[in-house]
Amino acid sequence: MHFELTKEFIENLIEIINKKDDKKAAEIMAEMRAADIAELYDKLNIEQAKYLFLLLEDREKAADVLAELDDNDRARFLKVLPDEVIASKFIDHMDSDDAADVIADLPDERQEEVLQKIKDIDQAGDIVDLLAYDEDTAGGLMGKEIVTVNINDDVEHAIAEIRRQVDEVDDIYYVYVVDDDYILKGTISLTKLLLAAKGTKIKDIYNDDVIYVKADMKAEEVAKLSDKYDLVALPVVDEIGRLLGRITFDDLVDVMREEAEKDYQMMSGISEDVEHSDKIWRLIRARLPWLLVGLVGEIIGSKVLSAYEGQLASHAALAFFLPLIAAMGGNSGVQSASIVVQGLANGTISMGSTFKKILKELSVAMVNGLICAAILFAYNFFFSDSFALTVTVSVALFSVIIFASLFGTFVPLTLHKLKIDPAIATGPFITTSNDIFGLIIYMTIGGILFSLL
Amino acid sequence: MHFELTKEFIENLIEIINKKDDKKAAEIMAEMRAADIAELYDKLNIEQAKYLFLLLEDREKAADVLAELDDNDRARFLKVLPDEVIASKFIDHMDSDDAADVIADLPDERQEEVLQKIKDIDQAGDIVDLLAYDEDTAGGLMGKEIVTVNINDDVEHAIAEIRRQVDEVDDIYYVYVVDDDYILKGTISLTKLLLAAKGTKIKDIYNDDVIYVKADMKAEEVAKLSDKYDLVALPVVDEIGRLLGRITFDDLVDVMREEAEKDYQMMSGISEDVEHSDKIWRLIRARLPWLLVGLVGEIIGSKVLSAYEGQLASHAALAFFLPLIAAMGGNSGVQSASIVVQGLANGTISMGSTFKKILKELSVAMVNGLICAAILFAYNFFFSDSFALTVTVSVALFSVIIFASLFGTFVPLTLHKLKIDPAIATGPFITTSNDIFGLIIYMTIGGILFSLL
Repeated sequence: MHFELTKEFIENLIEIINKKDDKKAAEIMAEMRAADIAELYDKLNIEQAKYLFLLLEDREKAADVLAELDDNDRARFLKVLPDEVIASKFIDHMDSDDAADVIADLPDERQEEVLQKIKDIDQAGDIVDLLAYDEDTAGGLMGKEIVTVNINDDVEHAIAEIRRQVDEVDDIYYVYVVDDDYILKGTISLTKLLLAAKGTKIKDIYNDDVIYVKADMKAEEVAKLSDKYDLVALPVVDEIGRLLGRITFDDLVDVMREEAEKDYQMMSGISEDVEHSDKIWRLIRARLPWLLVGLVGEIIGSKVLSAYEGQLASHAALAFFLPLIAAMGGNSGVQSASIVVQGLANGTISMGSTFKKILKELSVAMVNGLICAAILFAYNFFFSDSFALTVTVSVALFSVIIFASLFGTFVPLTLHKLKIDPAIATGPFITTSNDIFGLIIYMTIGGILFSLL
Repeated sequence: MHFELTKEFIENLIEIINKKDDKKAAEIMAEMRAADIAELYDKLNIEQAKYLFLLLEDREKAADVLAELDDNDRARFLKVLPDEVIASKFIDHMDSDDAADVIADLPDERQEEVLQKIKDIDQAGDIVDLLAYDEDTAGGLMGKEIVTVNINDDVEHAIAEIRRQVDEVDDIYYVYVVDDDYILKGTISLTKLLLAAKGTKIKDIYNDDVIYVKADMKAEEVAKLSDKYDLVALPVVDEIGRLLGRITFDDLVDVMREEAEKDYQMMSGISEDVEHSDKIWRLIRARLPWLLVGLVGEIIGSKVLSAYEGQLASHAALAFFLPLIAAMGGNSGVQSASIVVQGLANGTISMGSTFKKILKELSVAMVNGLICAAILFAYNFFFSDSFALTVTVSVALFSVIIFASLFGTFVPLTLHKLKIDPAIATGPFITTSNDIFGLIIYMTIGGILFSLL
């Protein structure tokens, strides 16, 4: 079925490594799948991992493990392996897109040396081609392993041609149909080829409705497209429509996940891709920046409040509701901002005017603001002896919810128009700004109402 | 290439619908892909959408459109279509998993009626089988469309058998190898079948290392598994290993996306899956619950503060930093909680003791807390005339960051152990709790230090 990496398994394996029991260790490695080995390596130190790695007899699998490792693990691994081993033991057995990723991870000075040690010159050529593309584009995601047939062939020739090509390609999801100039014309499925009568021409049975992307399309856009149309692989073409390669679903799922994680981290005020298992200093570095942004913002907030010192001194009860006003502004603002950010990310919010969106947000905020303000009013009406305070706090809460909701809608929409990642607006930035504005609103309303009531 | 749904396109189409230009409308529908039509329907009213739907001549495509529609759109659509049309025009042409989803969306009393009107009795049987599974399990995700060959066959028989079965299955990703009792033994690729010499037995060339899942496995677990091993389709078996169906990557990508969206919404304090384009009352309903939770929490906070009325009245400056303390506690807590929640979601945090994790969090919080407290100390040292306040605010900030970080780590870990979704700990719940505890810490430290200094 599938493998589960348990504590016992790891402890047992480390014992074997310490005993240098090569035979037993190699046996265990032979039984594990590449993805499981990659997961295992994350839990070992570099010496232990290297020991196991060199015992991996199946080179295809060793190459897969290297491709599956996360960036940090891979970097420390590549550092301890000689150029020769990287080239002949791994790169030669990898898909071109994974190979290009590995080469790109090497320091500049090593890249050329490793490239020159690759024995398969076609593979080396493919990698050099792929390195030219920005890694955040379709070109940066694609692999060169494709199976193609000529549109003018008949079924028998096509099958013979596929047999010739198939050695290079692990998973044929689609067979691409091209013309003599290698211009992409469409696709044909293996089953259709199998089912076709002898002598049938490809041009009479192929599917010409093919979705393709240009090499410079943004990775995020490519992922959206493949998700929308449920595509298992997407062909990539150049400016004049010549087939360059294909992108498979697993790479696009990775792009989607990274985008989602980025938005999630942004909202939690974390500035780097970290995990709890990372080193302490990495966790500190990832978390400190937004804490500092929040700190500076809140120092400004305290400065703002100090302007109302007299008011706070004469009505100490005003202070009781400072955290409430700040928090409710923060909560409403984050709600609005996150709905907009998610809408922009999945494309459901692309059309129509900003004004209309703000108007809709206003309706939602009015209702929720009124309900919250009414509850707070009822509470204070019964439990507070200051009517001025009761009115002030409720009116301020209502105003702050309205303001924060509109601000939370407006800011990400504006960032998006300025081509800045709107997700910035969901994190500590929005809560801190809303805190400051909320405090001003609260104290101003308090100043007016306490002098009136 | 691919289609983009523009404002102009929609306006133009609505004009055609209003003119009742059947021919032109049918032409446009014939050119569009199912996913694009589903996207289009979201922008039309139900009458316009129904009009276009009934003009769709390609029944396969019509069925695909119904499968692609989001739940709300589909529900309002099914409401206006007669049982007869649903059964013969759509269900008969859908994959069994999509068909079961559609039937499950119907009100109970209609389900049986539609099921009885399905002409293809095999399809109806498959749907009834699938309806038995919980929709959040592997069984609920799988389709019955699989291609199988017997392990004892030779290649020619197997290919003939595939030809016979292939009509039902859109995309053959894997051909499954079963024994006489339909027990799953492994897989074989079409290319391997194509390349094999005449007379070769399946049992000599099939791949017996197949990853499969049991029908009652949680959908989320299935998605993790397919993501880890980059699987395009996963076979599903019953308790004794008999092959029941397969789950394709597109359905698993949907599960992953929904999980990510759920966590994101939880963090933003939104209790339902909503989009900005949803109706106003839905947006209100999705956002109000957590606002109310926050409100009640903060009312408790104000009550806590009122216990310190004397202290606040005699040192009004203490109030200036109330929002700062509350906000910084909230920010640190959300950071910790979100790292834990994400770690639990992607499985990188499963092993080891809670105590160790808390200890690690403590180190991170100490460093960040010290840095923030030092900056605040420096600020107040130069700009505030009260040394007691300067010390109080910095000590409180340090303590609150420590407390909030530990609390933010502890709560989701504990929820997870209690089998409650830990993502609850990332939303307004954590910020509100941290607010209250933060205020108590702050006022207590203030009380002590102001009496000492």
